[in-house]
Amino acid sequence: MMNLRTRQIVWLIPVITFLFLGAGDSEDSIKPLLLALVILLPAAKVSGWIVEKFGQPAVLGELLAGMALGNLGLVGFNGLDYLKNDSGLEILARLGVILLLFEVGLDSSLADLLKVGLSSLLVAIIGVVLPFGLGWLVSSLLLPEQSAYVHAFIGATLCATSVGITARVLKESNRLKTREAKIILGAAVIDDVLGLVVLAVITGLVIGAGSGAGASAGSVIWLVVKVSIFLVGSLLLGVFFAPRIVRQVAKAKSKGMLFTFALAFCFLLSYLSTVIGLAAIVGAFAAGLILEGVPFQEFLQEGEHSPEEMLHPISTFLVPLFFLYMGIKIELATLFRFEVIGLALALTFAAIIGKQACGLAALERGLNRLAIGLGMVPRGEVGLIFAGVGLKLKIGEQPILNDRVFAAILVMVIITTLLTPLLLQWSFSRHGASNQDANKPR
Amino acid sequence: MMNLRTRQIVWLIPVITFLFLGAGDSEDSIKPLLLALVILLPAAKVSGWIVEKFGQPAVLGELLAGMALGNLGLVGFNGLDYLKNDSGLEILARLGVILLLFEVGLDSSLADLLKVGLSSLLVAIIGVVLPFGLGWLVSSLLLPEQSAYVHAFIGATLCATSVGITARVLKESNRLKTREAKIILGAAVIDDVLGLVVLAVITGLVIGAGSGAGASAGSVIWLVVKVSIFLVGSLLLGVFFAPRIVRQVAKAKSKGMLFTFALAFCFLLSYLSTVIGLAAIVGAFAAGLILEGVPFQEFLQEGEHSPEEMLHPISTFLVPLFFLYMGIKIELATLFRFEVIGLALALTFAAIIGKQACGLAALERGLNRLAIGLGMVPRGEVGLIFAGVGLKLKIGEQPILNDRVFAAILVMVIITTLLTPLLLQWSFSRHGASNQDANKPR
Repeated sequence: MMNLRTRQIVWLIPVITFLFLGAGDSEDSIKPLLLALVILLPAAKVSGWIVEKFGQPAVLGELLAGMALGNLGLVGFNGLDYLKNDSGLEILARLGVILLLFEVGLDSSLADLLKVGLSSLLVAIIGVVLPFGLGWLVSSLLLPEQSAYVHAFIGATLCATSVGITARVLKESNRLKTREAKIILGAAVIDDVLGLVVLAVITGLVIGAGSGAGASAGSVIWLVVKVSIFLVGSLLLGVFFAPRIVRQVAKAKSKGMLFTFALAFCFLLSYLSTVIGLAAIVGAFAAGLILEGVPFQEFLQEGEHSPEEMLHPISTFLVPLFFLYMGIKIELATLFRFEVIGLALALTFAAIIGKQACGLAALERGLNRLAIGLGMVPRGEVGLIFAGVGLKLKIGEQPILNDRVFAAILVMVIITTLLTPLLLQWSFSRHGASNQDANKPR
Repeated sequence: MMNLRTRQIVWLIPVITFLFLGAGDSEDSIKPLLLALVILLPAAKVSGWIVEKFGQPAVLGELLAGMALGNLGLVGFNGLDYLKNDSGLEILARLGVILLLFEVGLDSSLADLLKVGLSSLLVAIIGVVLPFGLGWLVSSLLLPEQSAYVHAFIGATLCATSVGITARVLKESNRLKTREAKIILGAAVIDDVLGLVVLAVITGLVIGAGSGAGASAGSVIWLVVKVSIFLVGSLLLGVFFAPRIVRQVAKAKSKGMLFTFALAFCFLLSYLSTVIGLAAIVGAFAAGLILEGVPFQEFLQEGEHSPEEMLHPISTFLVPLFFLYMGIKIELATLFRFEVIGLALALTFAAIIGKQACGLAALERGLNRLAIGLGMVPRGEVGLIFAGVGLKLKIGEQPILNDRVFAAILVMVIITTLLTPLLLQWSFSRHGASNQDANKPR
């Protein structure tokens, strides 16, 4: 009798397990993501709404909400720790920032960007040289025992700019058409190229140090040439061919066709950017710039919305997920490590001053130079990528960035990322922007 | 000299590799997905457009395009084989079908569904009993050497209904408001519940056969009670609370807030469905039904779009990816295995006849019964999930479905899935639907 009952219980276990696990494995893969979306979508919207009540940009609320959700482990709740490594959430977040920069590109004009192109170039160059130098200086003062390679790599991580946050603040506050915005966006693209070059050179030097050879000037020049050909080429080819292709596609007279092709074009340039070594968002921004010049209104079917209007709900869904995810990835525990606090604050100071000064390089008169410098400050995910390279890069057996230095860089990334929306909003509302005409809500 | 050159070349390899791999690991994770989207989005749209030219539903074109792209290996090109197992694509596809059923729910009315509820119940019951019996019969005739458990499991796999394809065809052709559509949608929900029960019973019997115990009637009744409580409870609670919650959320007067909460509600019920063991799309459909009754127009901000309008671009982006992905997953090679062709065709015949007959069970007069039966035919991803369970379920050391039987079931799934859009469209255009008023384009 007892035996039979035990058997029945044993037999029930897999059935009950099966029922609670759903009808099959494949269904499970989406389950954690669904739960994440249930929590994150309202969290993003409500936190953004709350900080907006206090006159701050929504993106700050999203970052803070993400940070809170990602660090519940500190108060003993670990049920959401899986968010840090959920591949589904990561994919949606990355698509979100790609579509954000595509939208920003669609709101910008290539001609206008080129008008302030020289300022952008100067801002980008100063914004790479100065943080690099200051980073090296701080490193050589505070870490005298480390080699010049380490100083150089720390300098390199300070060059990165994460334009997502700035772009979001500019877009939220309807300031994308200001000259400041154009200078920042242009400089961010150039900065991504320069950052790539700096990282390639340092990586080359470090690997060369291991093998005894130096960095090859030829390969660095080839990198610059390749990236420039890609950027200039895709813009030129795009501006020439995009309207013609749109005209052909429009002949199908099928609703949603133009939108689908616009999306595919955004993903194409994003993909090619990653192939060439640039960030995917640089390609997305270029795709937006190219399509901005296409007169879609002429080609739309009756009752069909323009690609920009169609994009809006998708970005409403996905963009906040990116900033939440960025917040979730922040490990607050690293902020509380006293042994790194000195180095961390010194690097943060160097990172902010270095980028802040680059606003002075802009040529036009009457600009809000403070805002330009602030717009270049956030290191965000680009800073994390640079630091991640440093963790894997080794001289002999030692990684170029040890645990302590890595933690200090993380603190720098966190502080620059969280401060920017706050300071940028404050600077614009206090000092305004160069042409306030474009500042009206659309 | 030679040595130096070799060194330089060795040193160049990691740098060049690094450049072509992008600036860091994390960027790589999105790269295959970006390439997939570049190919799949236009492929879906163009193939849908082509088959529509021939009067067929776009979903058929998407399935065929997916099948073509997923089987390029047959002509020696394996560059896209990664699509079959790309987790990013799978996640977007699954979100796509969830949002499709959410949209379909928003287009349906709970009251109207309940009006034809008895018909739906009868259609679902006949649509489970008959295919189960026919599947058992075919199996016992063609596989006399196998045990009754195998016959029962094969019968169970024939019970599944994948409502995604039918819902898409109904939506595309503006037939969601017809009585036929309501009967099919209601029956599909009930079918998912019944299918779950059948699968649980058979699984229990098989596991019990291994351990020597029988299926426990108590656990099966508990399953039915649990699932019923969930469905009825979520609908009742939802209909009562949703308008009140929406009213509160609207007080924030923040654009996009209602849309965000609507999306989160859809994902919440989808998630709870998977927890209870139902398909995620059942919850998404229920969420749509509940929100359909909420007067969103009263609560929208100036210039804000309704959740349904906001949903449209997202589903334009994601829904075709689901059907493409379904096509990509089809291994054409299985169709060409002669040793399974007899069993495959017999099972397909049983699967179609079994569901086809259930249209006769609908009570209302003047219905297009052929269309109702056809709407229940596709097995799609649900059939694949059932078959997948059979591959893992073992009696002793033997899986309950051997390789040959599994291949035959796959063929049945493929044929029922591909035939449905074709036949359903044909049936509706030939015999019409019960109330043609609702058939006008909106």
